[in-house]
Amino acid sequence: MTADDLISLRRDLHRKPEPAWREFYTTARIVDELESRLGDDLDGLYVGQDAIAGDHRMAVPVDVELTHWYEQARSAGVDEAVLEHLDGGYTGAVAVLERGDGPTVGLRVDIDGLPQAESTDPTHVPAAEGFRSEHEGAMHACGHDAHATIGVGVLERIAESDFTGTLKVFFQPAEEVVGGGKSMAESDHVRDVDALLAVHIGLDHPTGEVVAGIDGFLAVAHLEATFTGESAHAGGHPEQGRNAVQAMATGVQNLYGIPRHNDGKTRVNAGVVEGGSAANVIPDEARIVAEVRGETTELMEYVKRRAEQVLRSAAEMHDCEVDIETGAEAPSATSDGALVSVVADVAGSTPGVERVVERDELGGSEDATFLMRAVQQNGGTACYVGVGTDHPGGHHTATFDVDERSIGHGIDVLAGVVERLALDGTGSD
Amino acid sequence: MTADDLISLRRDLHRKPEPAWREFYTTARIVDELESRLGDDLDGLYVGQDAIAGDHRMAVPVDVELTHWYEQARSAGVDEAVLEHLDGGYTGAVAVLERGDGPTVGLRVDIDGLPQAESTDPTHVPAAEGFRSEHEGAMHACGHDAHATIGVGVLERIAESDFTGTLKVFFQPAEEVVGGGKSMAESDHVRDVDALLAVHIGLDHPTGEVVAGIDGFLAVAHLEATFTGESAHAGGHPEQGRNAVQAMATGVQNLYGIPRHNDGKTRVNAGVVEGGSAANVIPDEARIVAEVRGETTELMEYVKRRAEQVLRSAAEMHDCEVDIETGAEAPSATSDGALVSVVADVAGSTPGVERVVERDELGGSEDATFLMRAVQQNGGTACYVGVGTDHPGGHHTATFDVDERSIGHGIDVLAGVVERLALDGTGSD
Amino acid sequence: MTADDLISLRRDLHRKPEPAWREFYTTARIVDELESRLGDDLDGLYVGQDAIAGDHRMAVPVDVELTHWYEQARSAGVDEAVLEHLDGGYTGAVAVLERGDGPTVGLRVDIDGLPQAESTDPTHVPAAEGFRSEHEGAMHACGHDAHATIGVGVLERIAESDFTGTLKVFFQPAEEVVGGGKSMAESDHVRDVDALLAVHIGLDHPTGEVVAGIDGFLAVAHLEATFTGESAHAGGHPEQGRNAVQAMATGVQNLYGIPRHNDGKTRVNAGVVEGGSAANVIPDEARIVAEVRGETTELMEYVKRRAEQVLRSAAEMHDCEVDIETGAEAPSATSDGALVSVVADVAGSTPGVERVVERDELGGSEDATFLMRAVQQNGGTACYVGVGTDHPGGHHTATFDVDERSIGHGIDVLAGVVERLALDGTGSD
Amino acid sequence: MTADDLISLRRDLHRKPEPAWREFYTTARIVDELESRLGDDLDGLYVGQDAIAGDHRMAVPVDVELTHWYEQARSAGVDEAVLEHLDGGYTGAVAVLERGDGPTVGLRVDIDGLPQAESTDPTHVPAAEGFRSEHEGAMHACGHDAHATIGVGVLERIAESDFTGTLKVFFQPAEEVVGGGKSMAESDHVRDVDALLAVHIGLDHPTGEVVAGIDGFLAVAHLEATFTGESAHAGGHPEQGRNAVQAMATGVQNLYGIPRHNDGKTRVNAGVVEGGSAANVIPDEARIVAEVRGETTELMEYVKRRAEQVLRSAAEMHDCEVDIETGAEAPSATSDGALVSVVADVAGSTPGVERVVERDELGGSEDATFLMRAVQQNGGTACYVGVGTDHPGGHHTATFDVDERSIGHGIDVLAGVVERLALDGTGSD
Repeated sequence: MTADDLISLRRDLHRKPEPAWREFYTTARIVDELESRLGDDLDGLYVGQDAIAGDHRMAVPVDVELTHWYEQARSAGVDEAVLEHLDGGYTGAVAVLERGDGPTVGLRVDIDGLPQAESTDPTHVPAAEGFRSEHEGAMHACGHDAHATIGVGVLERIAESDFTGTLKVFFQPAEEVVGGGKSMAESDHVRDVDALLAVHIGLDHPTGEVVAGIDGFLAVAHLEATFTGESAHAGGHPEQGRNAVQAMATGVQNLYGIPRHNDGKTRVNAGVVEGGSAANVIPDEARIVAEVRGETTELMEYVKRRAEQVLRSAAEMHDCEVDIETGAEAPSATSDGALVSVVADVAGSTPGVERVVERDELGGSEDATFLMRAVQQNGGTACYVGVGTDHPGGHHTATFDVDERSIGHGIDVLAGVVERLALDGTGSD
Repeated sequence: MTADDLISLRRDLHRKPEPAWREFYTTARIVDELESRLGDDLDGLYVGQDAIAGDHRMAVPVDVELTHWYEQARSAGVDEAVLEHLDGGYTGAVAVLERGDGPTVGLRVDIDGLPQAESTDPTHVPAAEGFRSEHEGAMHACGHDAHATIGVGVLERIAESDFTGTLKVFFQPAEEVVGGGKSMAESDHVRDVDALLAVHIGLDHPTGEVVAGIDGFLAVAHLEATFTGESAHAGGHPEQGRNAVQAMATGVQNLYGIPRHNDGKTRVNAGVVEGGSAANVIPDEARIVAEVRGETTELMEYVKRRAEQVLRSAAEMHDCEVDIETGAEAPSATSDGALVSVVADVAGSTPGVERVVERDELGGSEDATFLMRAVQQNGGTACYVGVGTDHPGGHHTATFDVDERSIGHGIDVLAGVVERLALDGTGSD
Repeated sequence: MTADDLISLRRDLHRKPEPAWREFYTTARIVDELESRLGDDLDGLYVGQDAIAGDHRMAVPVDVELTHWYEQARSAGVDEAVLEHLDGGYTGAVAVLERGDGPTVGLRVDIDGLPQAESTDPTHVPAAEGFRSEHEGAMHACGHDAHATIGVGVLERIAESDFTGTLKVFFQPAEEVVGGGKSMAESDHVRDVDALLAVHIGLDHPTGEVVAGIDGFLAVAHLEATFTGESAHAGGHPEQGRNAVQAMATGVQNLYGIPRHNDGKTRVNAGVVEGGSAANVIPDEARIVAEVRGETTELMEYVKRRAEQVLRSAAEMHDCEVDIETGAEAPSATSDGALVSVVADVAGSTPGVERVVERDELGGSEDATFLMRAVQQNGGTACYVGVGTDHPGGHHTATFDVDERSIGHGIDVLAGVVERLALDGTGSD
Repeated sequence: MTADDLISLRRDLHRKPEPAWREFYTTARIVDELESRLGDDLDGLYVGQDAIAGDHRMAVPVDVELTHWYEQARSAGVDEAVLEHLDGGYTGAVAVLERGDGPTVGLRVDIDGLPQAESTDPTHVPAAEGFRSEHEGAMHACGHDAHATIGVGVLERIAESDFTGTLKVFFQPAEEVVGGGKSMAESDHVRDVDALLAVHIGLDHPTGEVVAGIDGFLAVAHLEATFTGESAHAGGHPEQGRNAVQAMATGVQNLYGIPRHNDGKTRVNAGVVEGGSAANVIPDEARIVAEVRGETTELMEYVKRRAEQVLRSAAEMHDCEVDIETGAEAPSATSDGALVSVVADVAGSTPGVERVVERDELGGSEDATFLMRAVQQNGGTACYVGVGTDHPGGHHTATFDVDERSIGHGIDVLAGVVERLALDGTGSD
């Protein structure tokens, strides 16, 4: 069982979920927690633009949105000095322990929430036990509150251990919009990493199960289409309008009709739509925020090309213009065999871990792949580890929650792997 | 030409457009203007719940929206005492002049703006001359700023005249959502009206033209459909979702495909749509705000019935639920011949009026019809008058504007008709 | 009551309905009937290319289709000499009576059937009384069997009368595809017509009612869109296909979504669609046969332009090509007041006619308008007469049928008008 | 290189492609070929109802269609006695060699063509060399002409060999509509088969390559939806229609929008659509012939359930009825390892075979799976063998063709496997 104080950190983060690039409270809270737990033991603690390559951020929201969340974090009473470093949506942190000669091991955890409402059902533990989201319309529905907590726990555990080498923990923002991974991968902190671990909780594996190496990351890209037509009085002159909502609806219907591909998985989703201003006005503007995925980058590009064609033709059909912006993207990546073996071995002897799955497929996307690829291209190794947890609702649903015992499992396995790598080397040449 | 001070009233209202049930500044400003111009000459000035039958309001927005506009009006510095009467979205006013024996003549003007952005083009007069909307995303795109000004002008003119009888001017809120007409028609103020005039500016008639009697009001009803599905991770488990945005898009496409009807005009518009929360989540909620119209109530009911069938089937098709709320409605109505003749006669001898059109069709909807029908059912007469104005953009478009000379025409013609009715009777039995 | 022998002509034609340009049996049967009834009394009887301007035919079917119906007519035992004149789809006839000095009066009747199945319901009179269609999938569902019979009856009646002048009866093919009117209007026979009558039975008017002058013909145009994509194995390589059926379905949905127009009636119909070859092949071809209509030619052109845009964009969206052919068209036309008065007057004193409606709107399209316009442009007059009939099913439905008494009413009124015109002149200058 | 006379058999079959259940010429031609080559060496030759279990046929076309193809075969001059056995669409044949004690080995080849047009391009070999399809709109676009030829060749080869045991070759009809496999699997001939081989040419493998064991058959089901609405005059009374083509188009669009499934491949195709009768009639009937597939039967059932929901809701939305018939289905199946090894081994030493692929995925569907499962359930083994061929166009496209050298490879490998099994046993217990 994890120490109570880590559970209370997780619950505090759960209570204050912040979507991509708005992790002001979250970052400041993590920094505060690290300083109070580790204090001078930390050899480096970088936040905001010192942690990420700001120019490489993707899918950053508009200023008014950032300001709203910034002010909300300030009202919650966090350290203003830290907060100032984050101003403008430069969230995230990197914490470093230097313990003499030895490999540089990285651990990447993501910290953002999702813009969706949390269940109020009394059988939903966060609702029942009083740590349900205080931010209406936002929720930790993917376990990143647990990930951040594991990051803190591993740092503390290694600080207390005999580990020789360097440990860097990357508290990465904006994973859910695949917008943060690249900016972290492009920062200087990643350059000298010999072995990178990334972690995800749940993924339909129960408490007590660990997946040593996860693959099958779908490549992903975001598309935002803005349709512009012309408004008109819907009763008096419908023929004078150019109806952006008709264009949008045609677009949505045909996006989902893009042919499946025999070479592997493809995905498309029109995740956010909006348009129009009033019932009696022919809508002159509409918007689709969509994403496309593929088992390989080629497959993702296939769906993307067809999606753009659908959106352009839908606009043309209704005499509208369309502006298509390609937003955040993430490639695919693979867990290295040598590192997977180490994880499997360590997990196999970790108390509480009852079953080790050697490999599994994610079936989703992740911008940890940017960091994994960066390390692999520098000659290092990378591995994406799954830590099972009993979760009542699926990921990204209103009743998602984690079994808090699995936070302990995550810390035990990952700290164990870090220590083992210091002893045995990182498996890279 | 209209007095400069009325022009400055119109421009001030134009600068602060307030959509339906949010006319806090507008109502207070009209009250203030009437008090300073007429003072003790007024025999009655009713605002908020004293002006309308609050229970009969339709399409009232949510509290948070009302609060935002209320606070904004307060910040603009209007009379707090008046404002308090309007709290909760009870907007609008009725002003009364009692000048001894004679008929009770009503004049109905509407005062609300639209939730759409105003043009910033330098050729757009309000932009060029500095009275463009200060409320981003809201605009007087249908001339109700001019209507309100005409109402004030007629009161002032009649107060200064030899008129004997009673004049009531109804400053009606929420016409654009056909939400205010019924609540005003149900108020006690309408009961004793012998002749009711309503006025609209523009309608594709140029400055100098007056339409004595407008008919052809389309009956209208609002529909709001909320689709509820189930969210899921769009990459990991698309099959677990029940996609409310797919249901919505299918709904929109098929709403516009409802068959035309041989008995007369029908209309349908999906004026506002929205759905989903994030690109990577299968959307579990979506909404369509639509309206249906018909040349008769039967035709409107035909479209409405088909629309509900489309929306229900669209939900079912995508395994979603749908909740359909029928919002505001307005019937059709007809201008009485006797009154039309009086208007035509007065207009024909009004300076600046170059052409009088006896009858025209509106081709849109109007909830003035509630007041017209109420008066007619009580044995009175009603007439809807059109005052031409050169308008660069169409009604409900970003470049709509009025030729301010037509405000003067409106006051002259309507005040002239009020005076004539006092002399000749109202044409009702 | 009409003579039994005319009823048996009508029932024989009903039994053998032939769609547009396939009226081989019908034309030969009419010719035979005229020859046996009138013999040498006829001053002219023109068939096929002698009756119509062959180059101006529109919407002619493919050869194999023509051959099938030609052979079927031959098997039915009609006069081979007449049949040869019709070869290649040059159907129709013009019959002329010359009776000395006097006006040239034209009567146009159409003779084609529809490609739809007739009801087998025992309450459907043709089914019960044994004259249901013998051509499966074809039916006289619009009363043209009655029209042809009226044409024969009027010729016979006038031949027996004191009429002085010239009567020409135009037995026009291919009205249902608006393909025959132009070719008849362009023939020499129409040039010297002083007054043209056209007739239609039914149109929701009951037996005993006559509409003296019908207006409100919708202008119409036919569009045929052929989508070409690329086939592929639907299971093995869906991504290699370019799906013409998806393009077609998108086209259909959005054709019906073309905005209504405030200036008047518009119509669009995707009347015939087809596509694909097998369940397991991505369809590489699909077709839509559509029509667009408008209360004026401008409105029809508006819908046509939008329809073409929809079809082109639908193809592009699914990476297909589309070939759009504009087929038959017909303009609108108006019945002349002078002629309408004559018809109303004659009808008013015709036994069996209980009610005369001065004017009504058709609400559909008709290529009689080509002949009406041609005569009017030459300084003549034209009038489209409605003869009421109790019809159990609507026009173009499987249970349509006529009350045969109305055939007599049609002959009485039209022959009466022809005689009256000889006495009083044609109303043209 | 294959003997010239087998090439000329293949080309003759290619010239006369016959779709499912219409293989009258094909069956008779195969019978004739076998009789002339093997004569009394054959121990059994069963055709029509003696070859298949007639009651288990699926997706049999209507009589008029069968009659057309039957008469066409008769005109081509085949043996009338054989033809009579096939009357009513009981096509296919089973040929048997009994050579004493030993295993019963089955070889299943399919013989039907596809209802699609063949390329006339001069670079398309069948067009250039004069054996392009003589049946317009039909084509051997999947190589079943080669399969049938391989079946004949293997029989001849084994008849001349020292093989001891029994060989049964199943010339199966109607594979393309997955309609014939079940009826052959249910026949008595399959009961005693110890080892079943099935073969397919091409599948994107080049000439010289052999795939020893193919798996990944998608389960498949056919759906035929017939929408019934109500016709009306499209110009006069569009509102009286209930538009079956609108229902169909909505159905098609949303079928393709059925969510992808994370558990594996799914497919949907609206392969044939049709509807309506004339441009000016609101269509009262429309039809979709669709298929759904899944990597497992569960996945196929998922798509089927969603498809039915889409079709039902599309009908309801447009006030139509829909009748959904579930047609032919096929399960998935797996090639047995022991048999795969034998094939790989034999192929490895077959001249002309340059490369042996142990296993590959089909990615399509096949009703050979009915026979494979039947044999496996009886304790036998089954293996589906791929014989590479350079094919210029993809399967099911207009330019598909085979490299005729691969017919020889197929005969060599399969005859070799049959002989080996007689020596070594069939690998089943």
